[in-house]
Amino acid sequence: MSEQTKFVLDESRIPKCWYNLMADLPTPPPPVLHPGTLEPVGPDDLAPLFPMSLIAQEVTTEREVEIPDPVREVYKLWRPSPLYRARRLERELDTPARIYYKYEGVSPAGSHKPNTAVAQAFYNKEAGVRRIATETGAGQWGSSLSFAGSVFGLEVEVFMVRVSYNQKPYRRALMETYGARCVPSPSEYTNSGRAILAQRADHPGSLGIAISEAVEIAAQHEDTKYALGSVLNHVLLHQTVAGLESIEQMAMAGDDPDILIGCTGGGSNFAGLVFPYLGLQLRGGRSRRVIAVEPAACPSLTRGQYAYDFGDTGHLTPLTKMHTLGSTFTPPGFHAGGLRYHGMAPLVSHAKELGLLEARAYHQRACFEAGVIFARAEGIVPAPEANHAVRAAIDEALHAKASGTSPVILFNLCGHGHFDMQAYIDFHSGKLTDQDYDEGELALALSGLPSVKA
Amino acid sequence: MSEQTKFVLDESRIPKCWYNLMADLPTPPPPVLHPGTLEPVGPDDLAPLFPMSLIAQEVTTEREVEIPDPVREVYKLWRPSPLYRARRLERELDTPARIYYKYEGVSPAGSHKPNTAVAQAFYNKEAGVRRIATETGAGQWGSSLSFAGSVFGLEVEVFMVRVSYNQKPYRRALMETYGARCVPSPSEYTNSGRAILAQRADHPGSLGIAISEAVEIAAQHEDTKYALGSVLNHVLLHQTVAGLESIEQMAMAGDDPDILIGCTGGGSNFAGLVFPYLGLQLRGGRSRRVIAVEPAACPSLTRGQYAYDFGDTGHLTPLTKMHTLGSTFTPPGFHAGGLRYHGMAPLVSHAKELGLLEARAYHQRACFEAGVIFARAEGIVPAPEANHAVRAAIDEALHAKASGTSPVILFNLCGHGHFDMQAYIDFHSGKLTDQDYDEGELALALSGLPSVKA
Repeated sequence: MSEQTKFVLDESRIPKCWYNLMADLPTPPPPVLHPGTLEPVGPDDLAPLFPMSLIAQEVTTEREVEIPDPVREVYKLWRPSPLYRARRLERELDTPARIYYKYEGVSPAGSHKPNTAVAQAFYNKEAGVRRIATETGAGQWGSSLSFAGSVFGLEVEVFMVRVSYNQKPYRRALMETYGARCVPSPSEYTNSGRAILAQRADHPGSLGIAISEAVEIAAQHEDTKYALGSVLNHVLLHQTVAGLESIEQMAMAGDDPDILIGCTGGGSNFAGLVFPYLGLQLRGGRSRRVIAVEPAACPSLTRGQYAYDFGDTGHLTPLTKMHTLGSTFTPPGFHAGGLRYHGMAPLVSHAKELGLLEARAYHQRACFEAGVIFARAEGIVPAPEANHAVRAAIDEALHAKASGTSPVILFNLCGHGHFDMQAYIDFHSGKLTDQDYDEGELALALSGLPSVKA
Repeated sequence: MSEQTKFVLDESRIPKCWYNLMADLPTPPPPVLHPGTLEPVGPDDLAPLFPMSLIAQEVTTEREVEIPDPVREVYKLWRPSPLYRARRLERELDTPARIYYKYEGVSPAGSHKPNTAVAQAFYNKEAGVRRIATETGAGQWGSSLSFAGSVFGLEVEVFMVRVSYNQKPYRRALMETYGARCVPSPSEYTNSGRAILAQRADHPGSLGIAISEAVEIAAQHEDTKYALGSVLNHVLLHQTVAGLESIEQMAMAGDDPDILIGCTGGGSNFAGLVFPYLGLQLRGGRSRRVIAVEPAACPSLTRGQYAYDFGDTGHLTPLTKMHTLGSTFTPPGFHAGGLRYHGMAPLVSHAKELGLLEARAYHQRACFEAGVIFARAEGIVPAPEANHAVRAAIDEALHAKASGTSPVILFNLCGHGHFDMQAYIDFHSGKLTDQDYDEGELALALSGLPSVKA
């Protein structure tokens, strides 16, 4: 029993503040632009969609943003999350590397998403909002916001990408158990949805379309606001609880990570883990390798353009500068539904431009192979998204073995795969194949980027 | 942040010994009998099925049984499990009762079952066993043993009740992810299975049949043993880690439970929580109310007979004295698959005869109503089995409110419902109905009890 496996913190050690990378960046990220005027947006432009407290968090340059007590109270249901030393995986790989993972799957919805869902629900409730509209792809964000809404007594309306709505009835059931309303998108409830359905009645939907529908509902109703589960600055801010806790837990373990790894769709679980470490570095601390891992089928960081683009397909959102595949880009069907977004968080994109991180892309079979190795060693079956981070951690550990080095690796295991077992069924039966995006589709989507001189 | 919600222990506080109720009982439970001779079985009779170390645990009267270090090492992947004060649920119910729950859903398989699966896999590996055969109904036990087998390098073969095999592909996928082989029962692989299929080719299977198949495989192969997920003394023994941890955690909370609650199928999660407290009582401590909660559709403790009976349908097992509905009893279809067993653990049955516990039965709709209330307040969606305990805890809390008392209630939340969302879908859509067992079926099954004068 001498070897410690799990580093747990008492709930009194839940961070009291979120960490804001904006405070430590050498240059600020480019401004968010109004799609009509191409001028920087002001708070009033965003007021129909978000409460003022969240708009303030979107632009603040304060290093520490206090976590309200009612949010910390709800965090107590699962936070601080455990940090593990993956001793069994290390032995299985016979690697001299020391592998750690921060496990965010202990939340009620099974992923990191409640870290921001709870905060967003709190600020909306405080602002007198009655209802929140949102979109969801794989369902992790939708179920997290549904949970948060049930806790604070807010109605939650979720537009779920139709193909996922049909394929993932268990995620839907989870949202309904928390009392939310979940409708397939495109729907008949919005102009955006009706326009798409008029063109193609059996449209499978996309995250970009579902965002348009939720934004439209929020913009049209005084008592309704919109919530996004990734990409935006305030979302990444809320996720930093994970990284902040991990700094304390790594100290308990007597180790300091040399390599930080997270999977990236919109970028929030990745940022939540790595931004607090980047902050240490930018304030004069040691540098670490920081690796963002994305799907080869939707590779915004490795194949996208760093440009101003819309966040949604219906072009209702402001323009942000980010690594993007183009707002009309439709990735092929693959199982990590949470990573199927055309753009990358502006802050993550900016950090990449500043040389603070590297990115790589994997095909899905290699990721599931890694996930099964991990499950058999550590017990936890990772979500398909998280398998990307697992793959990179295993590859780094194998590289260490080959090169005779012994780095300390820390990755974010952002969720469990209990609601994604169909993907494992496909993998075990050999039906899971590697998907590539269509080069013509990408070129077309990129050619449609809005022209902005900024 | 003054009100503590979650009581966590460092992994160094995983108990060093399991607690054995046998040591403190005023009278021993009746002996286990050989089905042919009706004489008490000896270790040699059980040797084809279990390694000697587990047979020794089955009969030991030592109060403390040391937990081997390799088992504690694996326990570290999720233990100690958290104990929660259900503050949000208390506020929702507006009750003066203080409600606590021990949450066993944090294990890799999502329930309490790995507490014994890991121990059984360890002792089998130590004894040179190559393969373990077992049965599973809802899949919680099968996936737990699959996980444990992957950790210790044992092959695992799971006979899964056919109707569950077809209805729960995600549970199957979980077993396969851990590297186990899962076959629908009745199968063509055993005499017991072939005999049933000859009578009815589309037989939906039952736990009793699946046990017969697994026992047969183990009895016929030198390198294969059998493992059971509940009922037996050594299984209940392994589960006491939960109750032992909870005693320490309740002390941290500064409270002492007046009412202990667990759901009962075979009895193991219930025993795991309450036996350590019963031990304190039997050694001169205070008495507490202890409530076993079972499904009205399979009510062994409240409607069964306390008699010698077989553990399986094929009558391959020894005879144990227990509360039983008869080994041929087939309960109606209801969603708490883990509670669909005709018998009750002999030790739990004996404790009931000694007046150490009370039992009650609930229909399933009332249980799911309780589960949804719980999920909306506490975030965790309970397994259908666990909803029985939640229902009883809520009823006791409401009774406290009505009677102006403020008891301390502790229940075992033995697993999460992520793999059981179809049950919640049925509940939300109004399709979930209350099931009653057939009185004629029960009378017939009881009339078939073996005649034993003991």
